Amino acid sequence: MDLARLIQIARGAEPADLLLTNARVLDLYACDIIPADVAIAGGRIAGIALPETDAYQARDVLDLHGSYLAPGLIDGHVHIESSLVNVPEFARAIVPRGTTTIIADPHEIANVLGMTGIRYILDAAKYNPLSVFVMASSCVPAGPLESSGAQLSAYDLESLLQDKWVLGLAEMMDFRGVLATDDDVLAKLRTAAARPIDGHAPGVRGVDLNAYVAAGIGSDHECTTREEAQEKLRRGMVIMIREATGARNLSELVPLVTPQTSRRFVFCTDDRTPVTLLDEGHIDAMIRQSIVLGLDPLLAFQLASLNAAEYFGLRDRGAITPGRRADLIAFDDLRAPRPRLVFRHGQLVAQDGKLLPYDRPLRLATLPVSLSVPRTSLQFRIPAQGNRMHVIQIIPNQIVTRAATDDATIAHAEAVADPGRDLLKLAVIERHTGSGRTGLGFVRGFGLQLGALA
Amino acid sequence: MDLARLIQIARGAEPADLLLTNARVLDLYACDIIPADVAIAGGRIAGIALPETDAYQARDVLDLHGSYLAPGLIDGHVHIESSLVNVPEFARAIVPRGTTTIIADPHEIANVLGMTGIRYILDAAKYNPLSVFVMASSCVPAGPLESSGAQLSAYDLESLLQDKWVLGLAEMMDFRGVLATDDDVLAKLRTAAARPIDGHAPGVRGVDLNAYVAAGIGSDHECTTREEAQEKLRRGMVIMIREATGARNLSELVPLVTPQTSRRFVFCTDDRTPVTLLDEGHIDAMIRQSIVLGLDPLLAFQLASLNAAEYFGLRDRGAITPGRRADLIAFDDLRAPRPRLVFRHGQLVAQDGKLLPYDRPLRLATLPVSLSVPRTSLQFRIPAQGNRMHVIQIIPNQIVTRAATDDATIAHAEAVADPGRDLLKLAVIERHTGSGRTGLGFVRGFGLQLGALA
Repeated sequence: MDLARLIQIARGAEPADLLLTNARVLDLYACDIIPADVAIAGGRIAGIALPETDAYQARDVLDLHGSYLAPGLIDGHVHIESSLVNVPEFARAIVPRGTTTIIADPHEIANVLGMTGIRYILDAAKYNPLSVFVMASSCVPAGPLESSGAQLSAYDLESLLQDKWVLGLAEMMDFRGVLATDDDVLAKLRTAAARPIDGHAPGVRGVDLNAYVAAGIGSDHECTTREEAQEKLRRGMVIMIREATGARNLSELVPLVTPQTSRRFVFCTDDRTPVTLLDEGHIDAMIRQSIVLGLDPLLAFQLASLNAAEYFGLRDRGAITPGRRADLIAFDDLRAPRPRLVFRHGQLVAQDGKLLPYDRPLRLATLPVSLSVPRTSLQFRIPAQGNRMHVIQIIPNQIVTRAATDDATIAHAEAVADPGRDLLKLAVIERHTGSGRTGLGFVRGFGLQLGALA
Repeated sequence: MDLARLIQIARGAEPADLLLTNARVLDLYACDIIPADVAIAGGRIAGIALPETDAYQARDVLDLHGSYLAPGLIDGHVHIESSLVNVPEFARAIVPRGTTTIIADPHEIANVLGMTGIRYILDAAKYNPLSVFVMASSCVPAGPLESSGAQLSAYDLESLLQDKWVLGLAEMMDFRGVLATDDDVLAKLRTAAARPIDGHAPGVRGVDLNAYVAAGIGSDHECTTREEAQEKLRRGMVIMIREATGARNLSELVPLVTPQTSRRFVFCTDDRTPVTLLDEGHIDAMIRQSIVLGLDPLLAFQLASLNAAEYFGLRDRGAITPGRRADLIAFDDLRAPRPRLVFRHGQLVAQDGKLLPYDRPLRLATLPVSLSVPRTSLQFRIPAQGNRMHVIQIIPNQIVTRAATDDATIAHAEAVADPGRDLLKLAVIERHTGSGRTGLGFVRGFGLQLGALA
């Protein structure tokens, strides 16, 4: 908005667009709660004043009757694709939960469609009541064993980084490539030098961690133990505490967050299925959970907004101060915050858990079809080769699995699934080129009793 | 340095340039002290390892025998000109004190020589063992009453901001211009939007403060009371605690620094005379003083390095972590740190309070003469106009003065100085154009008994 007008409104010389009265504002800088009126103009916070001062007039006034007011929540690292829905539907799930900004890594869609997929996410993110920043996916494909539909080079990433919604380089999963000073990996890191570069380094410790951090990688969201997170904190990494559907690290890591260290922690969801999003929630659920675990609510909100804003250099959000975006949430229970009102850029966009209607293009961005699997190539038989076999052992609530062996169940000279022993057959089918290449194996601990999942 | 080589050294696969062994490293992220060896290569910190691990080999090894090791100190806001010496001499005074980076506002020299003066500071800052970043001076002249030798417009500042050593806009002293939405002031603010913009707003509170912050101004170093600093902290400003020769705010403001709030505070010296620099020191003196006042030494070092680095977006310094610049200080008393060794970019540059010899150009940058005062125009007489007169009352250790009146001492029909009553005559002479314009007055509380100062 016009700077002169914002200054005039902030001084109280002109009426604001909206005045939220009788709020209890979460002050994430002084770390306490202050009773205040908050004036909003042109989508920005113009001013904060004590309620009794009548400092501000406004076109619209909304009395919050003592509700708490916090900055809109920020998810520091998320793959929208894990929600299985497109961006507007994802916004419908998380904006009513108070999330107004996400930092998305579109590497799942990039694995299928490359740059086309990332451009699709950037396009589809427009005109929704959610700020979708993107980190340029650093590892497409994710590893050398993968049959991906596309590859991204440093040149592709350089091109992405020109977009104002692209902040830096997404999780550098190829930590072996970093440590081996692989030319392509280093070229990608150089492309994003001086920008935020996210890490992904499960179990990388000691001198390897030194090398990984020296390469310019600034965060990690793969810590599963307090010891690992503590070491990464010491080496200067921002620790993103992840609570994904299948990888839950919050209860393990929250005890590390103290007033002294809180500035170095950020909340992220990484991968949440629709069921988790709808039943538990999003970053709001992480706030509630961490408060139950004993974290000061003000520190929890720092992790849920301010700290992510600072790490990503988003100076226009993360706190309720003059000049910042009026991305705000109102709620009534400080010990279990559930956003009742969600404002984005000064507009009320969600209320009582529901997204309000908003204007958006009728025609959504479209994508080319990316499935090419000839029916004739489908083949799921595993000839029996003895009484024992390798199985993938699932570890509950974790992203990592364990290699194990088990007795084979044999029928008609084939190793077959045996749901009674929770032993299921798994197939990975190359879908991009129609090559028919298929990997087969067994998984234990999944719990499916009937039918199949594709 | 070459990224591949840094990674190799960080992994311990190649020898480092220098290994500091048996250090007690101040970890400003985890907020504690860890015994460690620190490997340095190409001016960067390559890795940190526990002393007994022998993780690193190096060309040179220096045993610190348990000395503390902290990141090099940063002065968040300083006018080099107040030291009355040029940049190399200023470096000679402060680098042995542990300061390896300063954020300088060259507005004093700019008031005399404009862009030529600022370019001189940038040139003279090269080849010294001190990183001199500059903030583009926002208010040249400082105010409409001043007879300055130059004026800087938004166009000049835009040009300065192209220099990689220029970080943002220096203290916006014209807070009245901001509040009045003055076109020139707003043009300057817009020029530096998205960069750090420093403030200077003594006594600006309430809705005026809201407006000043909404304009994009991110810091203030003019707080003289805890209440004022607390309000500015709440409004999202970084509070630079100033301890200048003539304006000492540290003891008043340090009690606001807690583990919860420390991230929002930075130390700065603003203006220190040679006597203060040599007798007391620089940022190191502020650390010692704040520890005496009860501040946790680790928080004091955050204010003295990390927090300034974060505020100014200097991701390459402010903490001892892999990949950052090896700007380091070693000292032996955690309760009263006095740097014994100072490393900059991996080189030992000062020891036991003395700057070590270093290579620099024999010919210093030069400046045009800027003094044009015809002797015939000098006139210091003040005809008596009654028995009472206005005087400027100095407030000890503060930058602000008070308007007062006093009995005039009259001799030969003139109001004259009267050192016995600590009443001195003051003259301000326009020096740039030879106009001979002179302002005369009296000052009380200065304490000079004999002679005169120019």
